[in-house]
Amino acid sequence: MKHLKEVKQIEISKNMTVNDLVKEMEQSGVMGAGRIAKAANIFEEMVKDSKCKVFFGFAGAMVPGGMKKIVVDMLKNDLIDVFVSTGANLTHDLVEALGYHHYQGTANVDDSELNKEHVDRIYDSFMPNEVYEGLENFFNKHFDELSKEKINIKEFLWKVGSLLDDNNSILKVCAEKKIPIFCPGIADSGIGLMVWGHIAQGKDMPVNAFDDLKDILDIAWTTEKAGVFYIGGGVPKNYIQQAMQFAPNAADYGIQITMDRPEPGGSSGAELREGISWGKMSKKGKYVDVISDVTIALPIIYAAVKDRL
Amino acid sequence: MKHLKEVKQIEISKNMTVNDLVKEMEQSGVMGAGRIAKAANIFEEMVKDSKCKVFFGFAGAMVPGGMKKIVVDMLKNDLIDVFVSTGANLTHDLVEALGYHHYQGTANVDDSELNKEHVDRIYDSFMPNEVYEGLENFFNKHFDELSKEKINIKEFLWKVGSLLDDNNSILKVCAEKKIPIFCPGIADSGIGLMVWGHIAQGKDMPVNAFDDLKDILDIAWTTEKAGVFYIGGGVPKNYIQQAMQFAPNAADYGIQITMDRPEPGGSSGAELREGISWGKMSKKGKYVDVISDVTIALPIIYAAVKDRL
Amino acid sequence: MKHLKEVKQIEISKNMTVNDLVKEMEQSGVMGAGRIAKAANIFEEMVKDSKCKVFFGFAGAMVPGGMKKIVVDMLKNDLIDVFVSTGANLTHDLVEALGYHHYQGTANVDDSELNKEHVDRIYDSFMPNEVYEGLENFFNKHFDELSKEKINIKEFLWKVGSLLDDNNSILKVCAEKKIPIFCPGIADSGIGLMVWGHIAQGKDMPVNAFDDLKDILDIAWTTEKAGVFYIGGGVPKNYIQQAMQFAPNAADYGIQITMDRPEPGGSSGAELREGISWGKMSKKGKYVDVISDVTIALPIIYAAVKDRL
Amino acid sequence: MKHLKEVKQIEISKNMTVNDLVKEMEQSGVMGAGRIAKAANIFEEMVKDSKCKVFFGFAGAMVPGGMKKIVVDMLKNDLIDVFVSTGANLTHDLVEALGYHHYQGTANVDDSELNKEHVDRIYDSFMPNEVYEGLENFFNKHFDELSKEKINIKEFLWKVGSLLDDNNSILKVCAEKKIPIFCPGIADSGIGLMVWGHIAQGKDMPVNAFDDLKDILDIAWTTEKAGVFYIGGGVPKNYIQQAMQFAPNAADYGIQITMDRPEPGGSSGAELREGISWGKMSKKGKYVDVISDVTIALPIIYAAVKDRL
Repeated sequence: MKHLKEVKQIEISKNMTVNDLVKEMEQSGVMGAGRIAKAANIFEEMVKDSKCKVFFGFAGAMVPGGMKKIVVDMLKNDLIDVFVSTGANLTHDLVEALGYHHYQGTANVDDSELNKEHVDRIYDSFMPNEVYEGLENFFNKHFDELSKEKINIKEFLWKVGSLLDDNNSILKVCAEKKIPIFCPGIADSGIGLMVWGHIAQGKDMPVNAFDDLKDILDIAWTTEKAGVFYIGGGVPKNYIQQAMQFAPNAADYGIQITMDRPEPGGSSGAELREGISWGKMSKKGKYVDVISDVTIALPIIYAAVKDRL
Repeated sequence: MKHLKEVKQIEISKNMTVNDLVKEMEQSGVMGAGRIAKAANIFEEMVKDSKCKVFFGFAGAMVPGGMKKIVVDMLKNDLIDVFVSTGANLTHDLVEALGYHHYQGTANVDDSELNKEHVDRIYDSFMPNEVYEGLENFFNKHFDELSKEKINIKEFLWKVGSLLDDNNSILKVCAEKKIPIFCPGIADSGIGLMVWGHIAQGKDMPVNAFDDLKDILDIAWTTEKAGVFYIGGGVPKNYIQQAMQFAPNAADYGIQITMDRPEPGGSSGAELREGISWGKMSKKGKYVDVISDVTIALPIIYAAVKDRL
Repeated sequence: MKHLKEVKQIEISKNMTVNDLVKEMEQSGVMGAGRIAKAANIFEEMVKDSKCKVFFGFAGAMVPGGMKKIVVDMLKNDLIDVFVSTGANLTHDLVEALGYHHYQGTANVDDSELNKEHVDRIYDSFMPNEVYEGLENFFNKHFDELSKEKINIKEFLWKVGSLLDDNNSILKVCAEKKIPIFCPGIADSGIGLMVWGHIAQGKDMPVNAFDDLKDILDIAWTTEKAGVFYIGGGVPKNYIQQAMQFAPNAADYGIQITMDRPEPGGSSGAELREGISWGKMSKKGKYVDVISDVTIALPIIYAAVKDRL
Repeated sequence: MKHLKEVKQIEISKNMTVNDLVKEMEQSGVMGAGRIAKAANIFEEMVKDSKCKVFFGFAGAMVPGGMKKIVVDMLKNDLIDVFVSTGANLTHDLVEALGYHHYQGTANVDDSELNKEHVDRIYDSFMPNEVYEGLENFFNKHFDELSKEKINIKEFLWKVGSLLDDNNSILKVCAEKKIPIFCPGIADSGIGLMVWGHIAQGKDMPVNAFDDLKDILDIAWTTEKAGVFYIGGGVPKNYIQQAMQFAPNAADYGIQITMDRPEPGGSSGAELREGISWGKMSKKGKYVDVISDVTIALPIIYAAVKDRL
């Protein structure tokens, strides 16, 4: 035991900053608190490592959950080099960019009443169903522009982003800064449904399903080092993981925040350690699995790291 | 309380069938056991309802987890009308169709040792990394055939399936029986990586990212009734859910088996009840959320229902 | 990989018994299904091992959840040598022995309405609040008998059990068969509250808080081998674990069924493997953690093992 | 939707305090972040309400997890009126008071190696097994003093606390400040085992199992208002809940931090809302369930509230 650090009991002081608290958590060093502190350290290290590109996977209802500006701030501050998302988060980002909002609701509710009131529930976050009219108007106005040439999904999303006025939009910021944005499951989203509204009428949206793989794998092949940061699991995590697997170098840094369990075997809950067997995570890499609701852990980790940059 | 049924204590008898046990669980009627019984009843009802099309979402490491033949049996017995999968499950199905196997491993293992031995870990299921050679050979042999005309993902997967000899392959059975098979995130899979190997060299795989939406929404629009059965969450669940949302009629039957929690807000853990607000699930529908490892719950539910058909 | 077994895909056949299904799960061997099969094998082995005493920990709302007769059947068939329970399960057992029932309710309910109707909710199991009158009558009638001499908790519970007429009562069966029944947290239960009703009026219930430790540790010290079977965690698991720790031999067999996670560090979610460090579980022991709702896993495991005995 | 607040996207600023962050979380108001903010507000309100007594339940490996000084600080600042604990937390507190420490370990370890090195693992927190010698010495020295008169568990624990020199000990602070400390399951702990070491040799420890119920129920009966704060579940939560149930007034404030799920039906994972049916929680009460690792949520909540007092 001589070589091990003691678990220092966490001390809370008046007016302590989030970074102060995370440093206390580093001193305790165990269980969830220890993992939060480790995640902050690893995130700090990966963004300060000039050779490292940060691949950020973004799953879960994170825009309805209040995480959008944190991600936008990361993007604006060049902390994310490759952004991979579910279609749902991009749809919710677009919805907010079009002037709509999500609302503070409750899960203890009669969903058939909500249905009558045209309110869509995302656990305890509510969204007015009228957002679909806004989305339709947007795609009616811009469909020809969006579909005029063969593109891949990244280019399609950049085009969508470039049509927006909201500086706090993920899509807009990625488009402006030309941050690669991947969304292999784009058809599985409100954006996909809007496209369907047009192609069902015989129009064409010439977006290739596989083509983006060249882009993400090019980045994975050419970067000297890679850091992966997974908000939830799903397609975004897996898509980055497979890029790491097929690139010559596995990820050197890794952070995952999820509530999913590893035991049932799904990719979303799989520990980062598992990736070592596949060559997705470097055996010498620094990585941590944070078992937490993202809306709790991500703000803490980011507030701590923002102080250190 | 007069109108409520008593919780009958479950009785175990010698040589009882799975269906006997599930009927005991129906008599207890509460907690996980009650949900298993309810799921069996709902599945029985949805497959016996001649007006109902069954939309089956298939996520999680289900082929490495031993669930493939159950799904194949369902497909062969016409219990699934629309099959939606992650790319990973289709890749693992293809891997087995090419003659490879998954193995009984352990999660308490040094992943860097596995990496040296070229073993890929999926929790406690192991896969030899050499499967990628088999996949490469398959796609080298068939790429021209697969890429010769503009198709959508469903047609691409049917083509892949038609090239296989294994009668216990999901891809093969869907192709033979022309069961619509959707996989919006196909690029996010080993199959996607194989395609990348070719398009990175300048070849073209003319598969449209959005086109399948026409097919699944056509089915959702034209069926009189719909039943949804979600193995895990992810893209397969969400893709079916959005078809239900935009079709004139919401789902009349619903079963979901997952270990994900609802509170963090993600689609995978969302209770089916939430779908009522969106118009995805009918307020008069029969539905149940089974909180269980799929590899435990699905075999029980299916064994009970198979006896009743 | 040569030395590893293949994951055999589970096959479901008509009229298969639970034991048939569990044997299929053994052939798949991974994830939740693999653990169910392993648990059945370990339970079979521990009850067939004549040198082994089975220590059974019983936590969670298992009587409201329909598990009582399974436990009673185990007790009657001499499959449990030492029974350790929460106070709540013994209270619910007593409640049913006094003629009351639990009912099939729902968690989607207005709890203040239930309160008005004098219905106590245990997730989706309902209990009429009037059971407390029945409990009061029972303790009014028998308090003098129960309190007439200095006893320990085990003896107190045997006395309670001996006063009951219900042959399907855990308390009754333990009393009749003189199966040691431990409940260190007895004060934390409806039974405790009934005793409080009397001692608050100045009566004495001379039950020692520590005395039972002699009994359980005597058994742990004198048995040649030990098997532990934990239904949930809590005090029952921990109480048995500490007996294993202080006895000369650690447990040779172990099964745990729980939905609690290990990462937050609590005893209830701790993997059995952790006990090896403490000397609670033998390093050569056979053990398995089943991650499942008990009301799903326990009936399957027991039905399979009952066929084999 | 007009009456609902918008989900304000959380903004992170440099050097923000924990309280600043929690106020941002209040503005987002949904999912885990919303619950953290609500918990801080409720805790602030309950400690500022002069009519309210705070009942604090303390379960899980919280001393090995670094939470001891937070609780000690709460106790010293009169924020806790009634303290209910597992025996394990009191044992770990005593262990640290005797000069031992917990250490920052890992769960990815060979437990049989730890066993050889006499290291006891509590997930990723390590404890040297030699603490048991220290405990034995302590109880050898003080057994006669501790056992010289009939007492209840609270008085026993106060006696233990009064024998300690460590001002950061929970036991010591409770003893000095005469804060009622309850531990119905005291026999289920290292402290219990130390007592067993003496009673097994024929000595007597005249501590009554039920007597403390008078003390906790007296407090519950005489306080005008009650707030409950549950760190984990187990016996501490249930013991307070039953006091609320049998007292004339249900709890007016409630906070629970746990990772346990409600669906399997156990008390530890039960939502506070369920307590309304039982009369444990007031239907007009303010309450929140925080789904989080305690070592993450508790420091945040406490740091925010400490700034506000």
